[in-house]
Amino acid sequence: MKVIFIIIDGLGDRPVPELGNKTPLEAALTPNMDFLVKEGICGMMSPLGLGFTPESGPAHFEIFGYHPFQEFYPKRGPIEALGAGFKLKDKDIALRINFACLSNGKIIDRRAGRIKNVKIFEKDLSFCLENVNFILKAGTEHRAALILRGENLSSEISNNDIHKIGVKPKKIVPLEKSEQAKFTAKILNQYLEKTHKILKNHSENKKRRNKGLFEANYLLFRGGGRYKKVISFKEKYELKSCCIAGTGLYKGFGKFLGMDLINVKGATGGKDTDVKAKFIAAQSNLKKYDFIFVHLKAPDLFGHDGDFLGKKNFIEKIDKNIPLLRALKNKGDVLLVITGDHSTPCSIKDHSGDPVPILFSGKTVRKDSNSKFGERSCAKGGLGRIQGWQVMPQILNLIGKQKIVE
Amino acid sequence: MKVIFIIIDGLGDRPVPELGNKTPLEAALTPNMDFLVKEGICGMMSPLGLGFTPESGPAHFEIFGYHPFQEFYPKRGPIEALGAGFKLKDKDIALRINFACLSNGKIIDRRAGRIKNVKIFEKDLSFCLENVNFILKAGTEHRAALILRGENLSSEISNNDIHKIGVKPKKIVPLEKSEQAKFTAKILNQYLEKTHKILKNHSENKKRRNKGLFEANYLLFRGGGRYKKVISFKEKYELKSCCIAGTGLYKGFGKFLGMDLINVKGATGGKDTDVKAKFIAAQSNLKKYDFIFVHLKAPDLFGHDGDFLGKKNFIEKIDKNIPLLRALKNKGDVLLVITGDHSTPCSIKDHSGDPVPILFSGKTVRKDSNSKFGERSCAKGGLGRIQGWQVMPQILNLIGKQKIVE
Repeated sequence: MKVIFIIIDGLGDRPVPELGNKTPLEAALTPNMDFLVKEGICGMMSPLGLGFTPESGPAHFEIFGYHPFQEFYPKRGPIEALGAGFKLKDKDIALRINFACLSNGKIIDRRAGRIKNVKIFEKDLSFCLENVNFILKAGTEHRAALILRGENLSSEISNNDIHKIGVKPKKIVPLEKSEQAKFTAKILNQYLEKTHKILKNHSENKKRRNKGLFEANYLLFRGGGRYKKVISFKEKYELKSCCIAGTGLYKGFGKFLGMDLINVKGATGGKDTDVKAKFIAAQSNLKKYDFIFVHLKAPDLFGHDGDFLGKKNFIEKIDKNIPLLRALKNKGDVLLVITGDHSTPCSIKDHSGDPVPILFSGKTVRKDSNSKFGERSCAKGGLGRIQGWQVMPQILNLIGKQKIVE
Repeated sequence: MKVIFIIIDGLGDRPVPELGNKTPLEAALTPNMDFLVKEGICGMMSPLGLGFTPESGPAHFEIFGYHPFQEFYPKRGPIEALGAGFKLKDKDIALRINFACLSNGKIIDRRAGRIKNVKIFEKDLSFCLENVNFILKAGTEHRAALILRGENLSSEISNNDIHKIGVKPKKIVPLEKSEQAKFTAKILNQYLEKTHKILKNHSENKKRRNKGLFEANYLLFRGGGRYKKVISFKEKYELKSCCIAGTGLYKGFGKFLGMDLINVKGATGGKDTDVKAKFIAAQSNLKKYDFIFVHLKAPDLFGHDGDFLGKKNFIEKIDKNIPLLRALKNKGDVLLVITGDHSTPCSIKDHSGDPVPILFSGKTVRKDSNSKFGERSCAKGGLGRIQGWQVMPQILNLIGKQKIVE
């Protein structure tokens, strides 16, 4: 039995008065996912436990059975760098970058107007400073990764991104007393100054200025971490797996776990992503792989923007393409699992600690009597309440690959 | 968003045949709490996990996110001493005291007929023995704290209170082989003998004898512990908090966590406590504090006495005063949380490991379809089953103060 595992980023939400106090998922017309619920078992999942609010990185690690807090979590930087297609070496330090817009000394936009791509800046922002190689790798939209390769480096340094606008950017400070942390913070501050000058005078930003767009003239750092190889998904679960994702973080996550990346044309990681193309890619790779991880980022983006209608509509778009996968399920031995990595309520425009619905649909499940994929219907589901780490054991159980504990 | 957190001590119960197999909470008319359920989300909470039966102390610590068994738990003595208004110093040993009635060498009442107050005995029972200062501080009713201040003391000593009547009181014995534990047990036995003599001949007990009341002539010890300061609630959660409680233990718990104590006239900690006065105090302190902890002891007392009608009636009394708080919730940004610290079934007259109902009511919750505050209705609630330690993360999540795990 094979697995198609769909994570809809930021799926969960809170009641929206304009939607008749339904959540975007509840308000969406989702006949196909509802049918999967009818044929399946559902419940509510809290990635890190009820109330705890994760970034997508730790949430995904936990859901895939890599316990970021008990075991090793590389932080976001290295994952983002892998996702941007960079081959990390052991000991590399990597940071997640937002291209932002600084004006009169203050951050006025954290995403430089969601600039389409920052590849144009890669070369100019990659150089050597005090014997450390700074390598900038563009990701999707305003996202990039910065890799520091050299000696005497530490990942124990602060972020300069405080997720706020209208404020001065923070200086990078060491988070521990080591010489390495002091040195890393110092050269990162130098790098920030230098790159700000380069970006201000960059031809691309002159163009953006003329068009009245936010300039991409400042780098916001977070998630600094050191790369270290971990046990692969294949070794851990004996499942040959691939990753279908548009956004760098999730591609990087897949790579980190040793999954094959399936590149899909039109999978932008943005709101315009081609859901159908992703599902077709899942379909056509089912022969080759035991476990197909499909990631859909857009609902989280709509949540962060407070756009509940956009979120609802995108969920409907996902639903329209579900029959592509259901056909597979009906034909062969496929377990379909759909959930989110966390809630991103439109009312707060940020992640929350509210649980997300989860459904398991396949011939081995104990079907419950639910018939709607939604936060409050799944709360009554036959699966009950689970935490992120419980998802993989349940998948292994349903596909008959769970080893018996003797 | 601010929080009013009401803990109804011993709220949970088991079906009572005389109440048509409803629990006291289920049998009570609670239109106002039911309305909060309608406007909120509910579930069942097991402070320490299903089946585990806590005293109120550990239950409160766990619910407030201080894990008594993984981290530090001072035991009941030091909490009771703080609640009685005593300023503990580091290294002090404190014990919880019940004034009891001994007759013909046997305990015939564990609460000396629920004597109204034991302040009259404070001075006579505070003295020095083998270079250790014994200080007795009266609490509410039959309760007191005994503080031992000196060198070579240990908290590893047994209780002499075995929660039974008709038995001889136990000797205090050391619970470890250290000289300190042996010494502490020895001087406590001396103290017991001495104080029994003092109490027998005390004018107050002569009066009680003449009135046919149980004498307060013997001290029952439990919960011996050593005081140590812990991280305050304010530091832990960045919430300015106060505690509205009548009983010493809960005042002490509040003090232990660094909460401001709000003294309310008529808040006796007994069955006659003025619920309305407490809720008015909560109301008037809402401007000054982010988090208001209101404790109501009486339902637990009724449970211990097996008085299911008393318990039901007291719950109705609480309910009548709920509109005072609901008005606040409707006006401003208030999250109302109501639960118990454990069950105290009238049928067993003691604590049990049955879960207690919990409700969260406020604008950020995913309202479920429940409309009754009761054990079996909340078991169907949208929140599902949670443990004590999950309450605070969920509160922080709902008021938007949960830090994102990166």
